[in-house]
Amino acid sequence: MCQLLGMNANTPTDVTFSFTGFAQRAGHTADHTDGWGIAFFEGRGLRHFVDHERALDSPVAELIRRYPIQSRNVIAHIRKATQGAVSLENCHPFVRELWGHYWVFAHNGDLKDFRPRLHAHFHPVGSTDSEHVFCWLMQELSKSHAGMPCIQELTLTLRELAARIAPHGTFNFLLSNGQALWAHASTHLYYIVRRHPFSQAQLCDEDLRVDFSAHTTPNDKVAVVVTAPLTSNEEWTAFQSGEMRVFVDGECLIE
Amino acid sequence: MCQLLGMNANTPTDVTFSFTGFAQRAGHTADHTDGWGIAFFEGRGLRHFVDHERALDSPVAELIRRYPIQSRNVIAHIRKATQGAVSLENCHPFVRELWGHYWVFAHNGDLKDFRPRLHAHFHPVGSTDSEHVFCWLMQELSKSHAGMPCIQELTLTLRELAARIAPHGTFNFLLSNGQALWAHASTHLYYIVRRHPFSQAQLCDEDLRVDFSAHTTPNDKVAVVVTAPLTSNEEWTAFQSGEMRVFVDGECLIE
Repeated sequence: MCQLLGMNANTPTDVTFSFTGFAQRAGHTADHTDGWGIAFFEGRGLRHFVDHERALDSPVAELIRRYPIQSRNVIAHIRKATQGAVSLENCHPFVRELWGHYWVFAHNGDLKDFRPRLHAHFHPVGSTDSEHVFCWLMQELSKSHAGMPCIQELTLTLRELAARIAPHGTFNFLLSNGQALWAHASTHLYYIVRRHPFSQAQLCDEDLRVDFSAHTTPNDKVAVVVTAPLTSNEEWTAFQSGEMRVFVDGECLIE
Repeated sequence: MCQLLGMNANTPTDVTFSFTGFAQRAGHTADHTDGWGIAFFEGRGLRHFVDHERALDSPVAELIRRYPIQSRNVIAHIRKATQGAVSLENCHPFVRELWGHYWVFAHNGDLKDFRPRLHAHFHPVGSTDSEHVFCWLMQELSKSHAGMPCIQELTLTLRELAARIAPHGTFNFLLSNGQALWAHASTHLYYIVRRHPFSQAQLCDEDLRVDFSAHTTPNDKVAVVVTAPLTSNEEWTAFQSGEMRVFVDGECLIE
């Protein structure tokens, strides 16, 4: 199994603190050692880093921990291979372009032998069930809408599509188009929304505290979604099984 | 105008030496300061780095200079903006997936107001003429072949497509699918093939020499394609205007 980390914020925010704790799970506090990846949206643009070395040692992960890339939408993943070899093309998150926007997807779980039919223009480069199902999601989205619809419409479509995949295995995923972060849980997924008044947070996976009030303004809102809570002194909300939530501007949309 | 750097080799090779000289042109020996990018194939996988900071200062470029990523196909670009704002989504190289392979494209030149019609599934995320024409190339390739054809067939198709674009402006480009490197020149493009017996090379843009014989085996072959020669003591071959060459396993294919 793998671990997921997502961030959605109303202002460009660095993910250094969360990523530092998260990366400890790649061989230190957990055994997710078969590669990792992270994608940062900057406006419509994307920085995408993948590595088949474990995140704890990788020089690229070291860069991410030290270089505070500011982003409003981030998806990260550390991999414990269940399907597909340990190779660069099998590292999440995966990226495709649809309607002139980049889409980023990472999956935690196992869809066993489920391979929905790909009959259009999205094909996996690697051999994972995860990339295959991402291509299927892109295919079905592109068939459902002629161009980029609003977040609410996309959410309705994605909810239908996720419900068709979920019965075939474990389907925790994060998806972003740079505007919103969609998160779907089969088993383990938690989220938190940090807002004014900001307080101190203590990482679970490393002896590190941060005082968010020193790095934020009163208007900032930051949502973080993760496989298991990253901090020991904050209230994380567990997703229900089969639940999909969408985060926009650092808040969880209520539908 | 921008500058291009491509490498194609028969064995995974690091591009640290060439990139070090090339990055000097981003604000030191030339004024290509509006962002940069580099993509490395590793098997079917891809590492893709883009940055709108200039390559001379960028922490990501510093990582590339220090961390010898081994690859058989590399495309790099430093940008002097002529069309499109200085932003991450406008940094070359651009990436798309076609037939289950990543394709990487970088362009030097200016296609003015030429915007061929995009009626299929590839759309630009940014606002450059370069990404638009890359989407058109992907669209036309996908219409011309049902799946990935052999290099020779791809080369025939790409030659036809390039000839339709080239009259509309300056169209120096590098394109790779991880198997081959295609290079097309309108104005400035040079290449070299390094092979046994390897010798010393002296960078033009920085006081740095490398003895390739200390880092290679007698079987290694490495082709480098660049806007202007990178070394002062080697013989670089200039492309003719309108010429397209394809490099496979570190050699220029003769057709």
